[in-house]
Amino acid sequence: MEHKNTLKTWPEAAPRLIAVAAGREAADLVIRGGKWVNVHTREVLEGYDVAVAEGRFAAIAPDLSVNIGPQTEVIEANGRYMIPGLVDGHMHIESGMLTPAEFAAAVIPHGTTTMFTDPHEIANVLGLAGVRMMHDEALMQPVNIFTQMPSCAPSAPGLETTGYEITPEDVAEAMTWPGIIGLGEMMNFPGVIHADPKMLAEIAATQNAHKTVGGHYASPDLGGPFRAYVAGGPADDHEGTCEADAIARVRMGMRSMMRLGSAWYDVKTQITAVTEKGLDPRNFILCTDDCHSGTLVNDGHMNRVYRHAVDCGADPLVALQMCTINTATHFGLERELGSIAPGRRADLILTSDLVTLPVEQVIARGRTVAMGGKITVDCPHYNWPEAARQTVHLGKELVADDFVITAPEGANTVTARVIGVVENQAPTKALTAELSVLDGRVNGDPAQDIAQIALVERHCGTGGVVNGFVSGFGYEGRMAMGSTVAHDSHHMIVVGTDREMMAACANRLGEMGGGISVWKDGAEIASVPLPIAGLMSDDPAVTVADRASRMVEAMAECGCTLNNAYMQHSLLALVVIPEIRISDLGLVDVTRFELTELFE
Amino acid sequence: MEHKNTLKTWPEAAPRLIAVAAGREAADLVIRGGKWVNVHTREVLEGYDVAVAEGRFAAIAPDLSVNIGPQTEVIEANGRYMIPGLVDGHMHIESGMLTPAEFAAAVIPHGTTTMFTDPHEIANVLGLAGVRMMHDEALMQPVNIFTQMPSCAPSAPGLETTGYEITPEDVAEAMTWPGIIGLGEMMNFPGVIHADPKMLAEIAATQNAHKTVGGHYASPDLGGPFRAYVAGGPADDHEGTCEADAIARVRMGMRSMMRLGSAWYDVKTQITAVTEKGLDPRNFILCTDDCHSGTLVNDGHMNRVYRHAVDCGADPLVALQMCTINTATHFGLERELGSIAPGRRADLILTSDLVTLPVEQVIARGRTVAMGGKITVDCPHYNWPEAARQTVHLGKELVADDFVITAPEGANTVTARVIGVVENQAPTKALTAELSVLDGRVNGDPAQDIAQIALVERHCGTGGVVNGFVSGFGYEGRMAMGSTVAHDSHHMIVVGTDREMMAACANRLGEMGGGISVWKDGAEIASVPLPIAGLMSDDPAVTVADRASRMVEAMAECGCTLNNAYMQHSLLALVVIPEIRISDLGLVDVTRFELTELFE
Repeated sequence: MEHKNTLKTWPEAAPRLIAVAAGREAADLVIRGGKWVNVHTREVLEGYDVAVAEGRFAAIAPDLSVNIGPQTEVIEANGRYMIPGLVDGHMHIESGMLTPAEFAAAVIPHGTTTMFTDPHEIANVLGLAGVRMMHDEALMQPVNIFTQMPSCAPSAPGLETTGYEITPEDVAEAMTWPGIIGLGEMMNFPGVIHADPKMLAEIAATQNAHKTVGGHYASPDLGGPFRAYVAGGPADDHEGTCEADAIARVRMGMRSMMRLGSAWYDVKTQITAVTEKGLDPRNFILCTDDCHSGTLVNDGHMNRVYRHAVDCGADPLVALQMCTINTATHFGLERELGSIAPGRRADLILTSDLVTLPVEQVIARGRTVAMGGKITVDCPHYNWPEAARQTVHLGKELVADDFVITAPEGANTVTARVIGVVENQAPTKALTAELSVLDGRVNGDPAQDIAQIALVERHCGTGGVVNGFVSGFGYEGRMAMGSTVAHDSHHMIVVGTDREMMAACANRLGEMGGGISVWKDGAEIASVPLPIAGLMSDDPAVTVADRASRMVEAMAECGCTLNNAYMQHSLLALVVIPEIRISDLGLVDVTRFELTELFE
Repeated sequence: MEHKNTLKTWPEAAPRLIAVAAGREAADLVIRGGKWVNVHTREVLEGYDVAVAEGRFAAIAPDLSVNIGPQTEVIEANGRYMIPGLVDGHMHIESGMLTPAEFAAAVIPHGTTTMFTDPHEIANVLGLAGVRMMHDEALMQPVNIFTQMPSCAPSAPGLETTGYEITPEDVAEAMTWPGIIGLGEMMNFPGVIHADPKMLAEIAATQNAHKTVGGHYASPDLGGPFRAYVAGGPADDHEGTCEADAIARVRMGMRSMMRLGSAWYDVKTQITAVTEKGLDPRNFILCTDDCHSGTLVNDGHMNRVYRHAVDCGADPLVALQMCTINTATHFGLERELGSIAPGRRADLILTSDLVTLPVEQVIARGRTVAMGGKITVDCPHYNWPEAARQTVHLGKELVADDFVITAPEGANTVTARVIGVVENQAPTKALTAELSVLDGRVNGDPAQDIAQIALVERHCGTGGVVNGFVSGFGYEGRMAMGSTVAHDSHHMIVVGTDREMMAACANRLGEMGGGISVWKDGAEIASVPLPIAGLMSDDPAVTVADRASRMVEAMAECGCTLNNAYMQHSLLALVVIPEIRISDLGLVDVTRFELTELFE
């Protein structure tokens, strides 16, 4: 693939870097008179110049005027801090509902110049081919986006059907791609603990390629199961939520990734392992995991995480190591990026203050990519093929009858299992409710805050619809809300109080090629088109954030009273988190990891 | 090659490690009730058990009695410290005059379980084939010996002829061998600074293989030349001698390797960068570089370096990181060794004290390899081929006339250039002396402490002898001293006061297949046979140390008054260190890097 953002390797660039460092040749760029923030020694060194050539740092010294020629760009640091570009240790681009290009465009002004991304969501929709598309667009960007090969699609084999399944052979193939840095979070921790051959084969393919195995151990048990998981090979974990979690991971030789995402707040509770317990900080890393477009537009990205870590009491230089060199070392890239040192990619931020971290100028690979919060470069778009833009296969036009829930023969009332959503929490409650039967059909009950939920199969066009009940959103009147973002299998989830409108909403999502649609009183009142895999938009972050914001308003207009209810909606099919979920195979009891019946 | 010391990789061992960690299976070994010295967190944790399976750590927890089955070996730590096996970050096995097997046997009781070795000396004699032999014997050992591919043979192209020349193609080939970890010290620092294509090609081959480029920047200039060298790619350096050297290297993203060898004392002068200046210690590493067999027998190895670092004020846990995890991380092996953590090679020392560090029991790959200072395992010998044992090719029987130095036509006295040896220093002095002529021949002059020196070609059997003069040894009477250890080209250096005896000494070394021989009054009074490449013995270290000790006595019996004069002798052909040396091509002015004449 042709693209502009290629970069010579260090050995390719070496003759030029040496000539510049020796003072024999002019540099491409000289930054003059800054404070060199050195993450190798953990020092701030005043009065340094930085010379850049071939997109890499060539020299750092008190006076590099010898390197300024007629063609050399000169940037005056004027005594400001020069810090390495920020690194996100683990994240999912799809969470921003943006393509890699638009995600990059959104985070570059915040100073993020390197991301380690796991395109787990697209893997569920488009398999290895989708991972490759994300990987290819990632490599086109003016900043560094490394891809972690997704490990667990489906997340729960036997309880759901994904668009594609990832195999150990897929993992082995991906390890040969230029932008693959390791294995994405190994979420199937019970599989590792029980030595599931498929999971171990994926880990082996990664370790044999000398790459990094991402972890995901989402259990509070730090005894035998945790030790067994570590013995299986995952090298990091971002699922820790308390100090004991962080300490246990680092003692075992893992790296503790502490996350601050749009809905994750796991830095404050864990960073005390360093700030209070005094552990060697080298094995602690900051990351976001998941950021919505609104967070990127309004709050920031890794700069937000860094500031938060400092607010939590971390020494600024230690916090900076946690989002630069520590991460680079973890992924075997410490000689490639993560510090201002010779040979490394020239990724650098100019800032006036190490606590508030105003991101005044961002340089990536020796080029200014953002100034004063505005991006100054193009983030090229991949030519997404039709197969990636047409992923909503309904197989037929849906009608109201597809959402009818038939009562057992002769019943007047039924006791139904109901998915209970809980505000600000990922787990659901397994509720039951008495519902009346009319003409042999069971209906939702606004008085009990019970709406219908449908899982509409959208990968293979089977026309399959699984119906059930959900409680907690507070929906009133005639409405429907649908989304093709439906973790992790990403079928379509439609919640509604009216079957006609549920059908209209589903059909509308089919026409849009995926996204989110909210209907009220017979008309669509908000939509967020996500045409790529039904997960991402290739519009700018600010546009997507506006649409998402309008979507949240529309949910409220339908009576929804929950904070951040869209997240609850998109997680209703996540059959790895208790207690009860819906999948294309039926209602799932996630406490017992088995399918269950709608009626007791 | 068949050998016993194979080890399953982590992914190969994972099913068993998981089963042990989960408590489902018995371990091969359980160490009970120790203090877990954790180099990831920099903590000492009391009351831990360690379970080992397949030669790797499976679990560390307060109570692992669940892993003790009928076949499980149990070691009682009885509250002692459990520290990772010690790692030597850079060294030359040949400096011990021992084969890798016998070197390993000598250092294992001192707790060294991992070495990064650069077989630079044998590369000069036997080229890539010799490196492969060292590499193969290294892989047969019960401890970890990784090979750094030598980079600079000859050290000074054009000023000497080695047995073989190392090429970039050799380097690229070696990078595919299983035990090669990177490039050996890039001594040709002027070459790097001037972008010598051959040197850069060797570095590129190493970087492209994602391996570590060893550095060697032996200059006090920390300005442009230093920066140019760093820009060329070397990732570490052990040639620093003062605090400023160490700080400069680490700021530039290199690792500072601080050495304590038999004749190197560079820890005390540099470790203040950490102990006083407070730099992040993660990029500091301890190493030996060169240890004589006597040091190994009498003083220790990395345990000696560790104790010294602690004596110099380093926190014991920081010093321990400097010879365990820091080194492993540098070479991309942090998930393979260097800590007591799941999946890593089970290399561990039991010790009662972290300051004096008595090495009470050494475990490597889960097996006890030394107890109370005695080795308990076999270190297998490689079947060295005849080509490696017959490397002294004189081409003829030498006679006294080969050592005659003819005066210029008609001269009665001459002004000769004389190599002046300096006690305890590697550099020589370029001296001159007035010498009398007898029968057209110039003789040494005991009154001025001037002996003859001869460089005898021994790689190609050319019969070449280059004669000159040396001062400073204090030799008296009729004597000769010869050695085939003659850095870096390793021809034969013979120093003597008597031409008959110089010839006898050279012929004797030819018969022995190399080594050291001291002659007095017509008879050999000491010898150290080094039959392998003329550099190494496959006898035990204690035997070689005894012979070397006797050799030093014999030198004194010949009148030598210098401390450690054998080192001076073996360095007289090292044509990269000023001021004046001898090579097979003539007398070398190392200040100007050119050949010079014997007579002014």
